[in-house]
Amino acid sequence: MNFPGVVHKDPICMAKLEAFQGGHIDGHAPLLRGNDLNGYLSAGIRTEHESTTAEEALEKIRKGMQVLVREGSVSKDLYALMPIITERLSPHLALCTDDRNPLDIAEQGHLDYMIRTAITHGVEPLAIYRAASISAARAFGLRDRGLVAPGWRADLVVIDSLESCKAETVFSAGRRVTAELFASRKLIAPVGLDSVKARPINAADFGVPVSEGESSVIGVTPGKIITEHRRYRLPAKGNQTDIDLGNDIIKVAVIERHGKNGNHANGFVQGFGLKKGAIASTVGHDSHNICVVGVDEDDMALAANRLSDINGGFVVVENGVVIGEIALPIAGLMSLEPYESVRDTLHHLRQAAYALGATLGEPFLQLAFLPLPVIPHLKISDKGLVDVDKFMLIG
Amino acid sequence: MNFPGVVHKDPICMAKLEAFQGGHIDGHAPLLRGNDLNGYLSAGIRTEHESTTAEEALEKIRKGMQVLVREGSVSKDLYALMPIITERLSPHLALCTDDRNPLDIAEQGHLDYMIRTAITHGVEPLAIYRAASISAARAFGLRDRGLVAPGWRADLVVIDSLESCKAETVFSAGRRVTAELFASRKLIAPVGLDSVKARPINAADFGVPVSEGESSVIGVTPGKIITEHRRYRLPAKGNQTDIDLGNDIIKVAVIERHGKNGNHANGFVQGFGLKKGAIASTVGHDSHNICVVGVDEDDMALAANRLSDINGGFVVVENGVVIGEIALPIAGLMSLEPYESVRDTLHHLRQAAYALGATLGEPFLQLAFLPLPVIPHLKISDKGLVDVDKFMLIG
Repeated sequence: MNFPGVVHKDPICMAKLEAFQGGHIDGHAPLLRGNDLNGYLSAGIRTEHESTTAEEALEKIRKGMQVLVREGSVSKDLYALMPIITERLSPHLALCTDDRNPLDIAEQGHLDYMIRTAITHGVEPLAIYRAASISAARAFGLRDRGLVAPGWRADLVVIDSLESCKAETVFSAGRRVTAELFASRKLIAPVGLDSVKARPINAADFGVPVSEGESSVIGVTPGKIITEHRRYRLPAKGNQTDIDLGNDIIKVAVIERHGKNGNHANGFVQGFGLKKGAIASTVGHDSHNICVVGVDEDDMALAANRLSDINGGFVVVENGVVIGEIALPIAGLMSLEPYESVRDTLHHLRQAAYALGATLGEPFLQLAFLPLPVIPHLKISDKGLVDVDKFMLIG
Repeated sequence: MNFPGVVHKDPICMAKLEAFQGGHIDGHAPLLRGNDLNGYLSAGIRTEHESTTAEEALEKIRKGMQVLVREGSVSKDLYALMPIITERLSPHLALCTDDRNPLDIAEQGHLDYMIRTAITHGVEPLAIYRAASISAARAFGLRDRGLVAPGWRADLVVIDSLESCKAETVFSAGRRVTAELFASRKLIAPVGLDSVKARPINAADFGVPVSEGESSVIGVTPGKIITEHRRYRLPAKGNQTDIDLGNDIIKVAVIERHGKNGNHANGFVQGFGLKKGAIASTVGHDSHNICVVGVDEDDMALAANRLSDINGGFVVVENGVVIGEIALPIAGLMSLEPYESVRDTLHHLRQAAYALGATLGEPFLQLAFLPLPVIPHLKISDKGLVDVDKFMLIG
């Protein structure tokens, strides 16, 4: 569930909130403070993972929230929130990764990475381990896990030391996990296949007519899903508004792909570093339409259309050639391949993005967050640019 | 709900435990440690207030329990448990009073007394206040209280200082409680009137035939509901076993008073200090039969019968005269009078017990715990003496 900071005008949000009163309600309230936060919390929302500064997190804890410290592949808040990961506050904390790609999990780790990084930077082991276990379980009302205790579920990781947090042995529901046990696990049949139903796209679809004055540009910051609303006077090319490579401003588009309405919205984005080609994705929170950024409209069209061919995923195109891709046929979001294979493919895919000039450490997930219109400040949906602060479409 | 330490043989306990799986289950596990405690916790019991030493409480916390630190009128565990009331452990603690009489509440206070006493003895204010508020709320799944926070229920006590914890103002559900607001509260109609249905008792009912060897004697310790199983060779008086005032051993009896079966059981108790007369009560956990202790069988009979006349309460008799009593006509447990009146009557009642020689600080509540057959070690029910360790009737 994503609830924007301002919910009082939205009947769907209100109905959702009513339905979950008495239960657990997780929210998203990036940058929300003061009276706005008070109003938000009055709706009964008790957890969230959008705090990006220690001051913001502390205010939320004081006002009754359980703060989930997030370290994903794009949104990295661990360093900023380390000052509040103390023994005193740890009952009011938990850890999460949110969007963390398999490559980072393979190279750095998951919660284990957060734990050892925090300890390296001086966080007390008790504080970070408590946040990672019993505090998280309690926050979500899970009464049978989070401690090693009689009668509790024995999901256990045996680690080599508190500091390095390297898993040596894993127990699941009391059974030691061996290669044989893992191989014998019950597989779940894939769902959401054939989910990409976008119409064929061509270069002309990405045209933006010349307009008076400055254009709104989505400003991307490495490692942040919060974007800036920037304004630039962009060059014209005939009757079209052109990109501005000198200022790292390229095109971005969101294309409806669920077969609902064929919407297509264009805009400009700054900060990807691309000098050529295009990158497209069917992972685009939370509507998961096609999102594509690029320097060249033909390459953007090819990238978008290729996503229809492979039933979703990530695609990198350079000069009319697909130079990297990964298919994510489960709802356009998940792979059918084993983890090791996904990890290797993502590694090649990242290299392909770098070959276009991409300067972001995580270009694909930063792309995936451009369409999320509940995170400040400027986003793009299939209906157009969204000013998240005003909570309205601006074209 | 009272669950004895050993539950596996009792189908009613098992059915209760099954019915509450997934919900909150409170238990009573005095002195339970090690593997016995492990087995007990495996039934899903997560809170209890019977820890009487810091070591016992710490073991229970380590094994996943929320320990409720109790300071009642008889069971006083606050001092023993102070070493574990720390900032680190406070998320796993709560405070409670259990049986605390109105006189103690008037003279000393309730949780406020526990808080200021703990702080006086060096407990960190954060630790004790956290245990008294948010930790307790979380332990019982109350998601809207325990903090001063937006959207939470505003049941607030404004205190003069952290150290003295004296209530200056009270808010209930956001409304400042004035004398007018209190007077306008909705009263609840009394229930359980006319609950005392014991048959008339006479002195001969308290006879105990002479037996071979030693007699079991319930050993009472001031301020403890746990009793000792003591054995004495008691004097004979004709064909009857007599009391032994030199060793402070007098008679105790439990009389069924709900009109079910007319059971009557006799035994001996050591530690009340009575030199004459009798004390009787309809407060007798958890069956709340009549419990009477005394030196003189006629006085015991009069005290028991007087309870039928006043529909329950406490009675003190000396030489054939009722010298003190309080009526508790709501189920034999609660008064219909205002708090101030109950407080004053209890004060007189206590003086009457002292006039008989009573040496216990709280003779009436110590009496009330003699019939509780889930608390070690020797108790008495309407069926006879109970060896709680063996969980069996011994006569």
